[in-house]
Amino acid sequence: MSIIVHSGDMDKLYSALILATGALAMGMEASLFFTFWGLVRLKKGGLERGGLSRMNMLGLGRWMMRRRMKRANVASLERLLKDFKELGGKIIACDMTMEIMGIKMEDLREDLITDCGAVGTYLEEAKQSRINLFI
Amino acid sequence: MSIIVHSGDMDKLYSALILATGALAMGMEASLFFTFWGLVRLKKGGLERGGLSRMNMLGLGRWMMRRRMKRANVASLERLLKDFKELGGKIIACDMTMEIMGIKMEDLREDLITDCGAVGTYLEEAKQSRINLFI
Amino acid sequence: MSIIVHSGDMDKLYSALILATGALAMGMEASLFFTFWGLVRLKKGGLERGGLSRMNMLGLGRWMMRRRMKRANVASLERLLKDFKELGGKIIACDMTMEIMGIKMEDLREDLITDCGAVGTYLEEAKQSRINLFI
Repeated sequence: MSIIVHSGDMDKLYSALILATGALAMGMEASLFFTFWGLVRLKKGGLERGGLSRMNMLGLGRWMMRRRMKRANVASLERLLKDFKELGGKIIACDMTMEIMGIKMEDLREDLITDCGAVGTYLEEAKQSRINLFI
Repeated sequence: MSIIVHSGDMDKLYSALILATGALAMGMEASLFFTFWGLVRLKKGGLERGGLSRMNMLGLGRWMMRRRMKRANVASLERLLKDFKELGGKIIACDMTMEIMGIKMEDLREDLITDCGAVGTYLEEAKQSRINLFI
Repeated sequence: MSIIVHSGDMDKLYSALILATGALAMGMEASLFFTFWGLVRLKKGGLERGGLSRMNMLGLGRWMMRRRMKRANVASLERLLKDFKELGGKIIACDMTMEIMGIKMEDLREDLITDCGAVGTYLEEAKQSRINLFI
């Protein structure tokens, strides 16, 4: 399974991570390619920054959200990313995004990222994947 | 074909339903997995609630939109969902979304939903699909 | 590779074009299906219209963005679309979108578009593709 994580919306990051970790748990291989706003989330401190605005629209406060996620046994994004990597998942940072947005490797969560890559890296992986998504 | 319907935007719901119903019409099998804002649309009354704001940005009023869709022979979302189910398509509600957002089965359009499911249900279906999309 | 270009956001158009042109460069075949807001971008003058609002949110002005993209050797969307077509890529305009939005063929960039098509055209192409994305 390969997923391009283009969006930085919290709800979409959750979807991506839950799908990808689920795939690993079922014995599949999985790669996440972080580009644009998705990659911005992998900057140091990027996961904590408010991004639940759309969730709030539904009338759910940040605190309420956290409580419900806990009750539903949904780990934090931080935890999901760490689990994903520990289970053997690959996290690739898009180097073109880094250049355009002026992001340096040391600005990113190097503990989470497996490697940098370009479109060729993605396509090689996607060609061999049964499931490819753009989130 | 499998589609994760994450968005609740009317234009994206249309895309998902037109693609999925088209697949059935061509003799393919198709499953729709409703999560997050997509699932919110399957709450009783959820399809009627205003969500054409982005369409309005284009300068098309709600009434104009309806008239044009009628002229282009595009059925309403309600009709498309019913047709999809009657033609044998599967509509799965994401049970994690239900737990997080506090949605109960009786809050949802039970007449449209085939089943509840988790990430494993989706992945099994997607592994056997030629076309997988995240909308 | 097949990509449905539903979004008109500049950052997503870039992703779609960079992926699709990359696929051609690797010897794959690639088709882009422009629907809804994606198709609106293919109207005459549609690529120039401001759509970098979300990019500006990041604190990058339009001018800064252009300079950085140039430095990173990223061509303009105009250039990417032309290159894609010249390298043999197919650009299909969704005829249902045209009917709903009242777009006529002469309103569109006919120099870029290979053909018009409906959901059946897309599905035939997608069934034969190793990678299918919805952007």
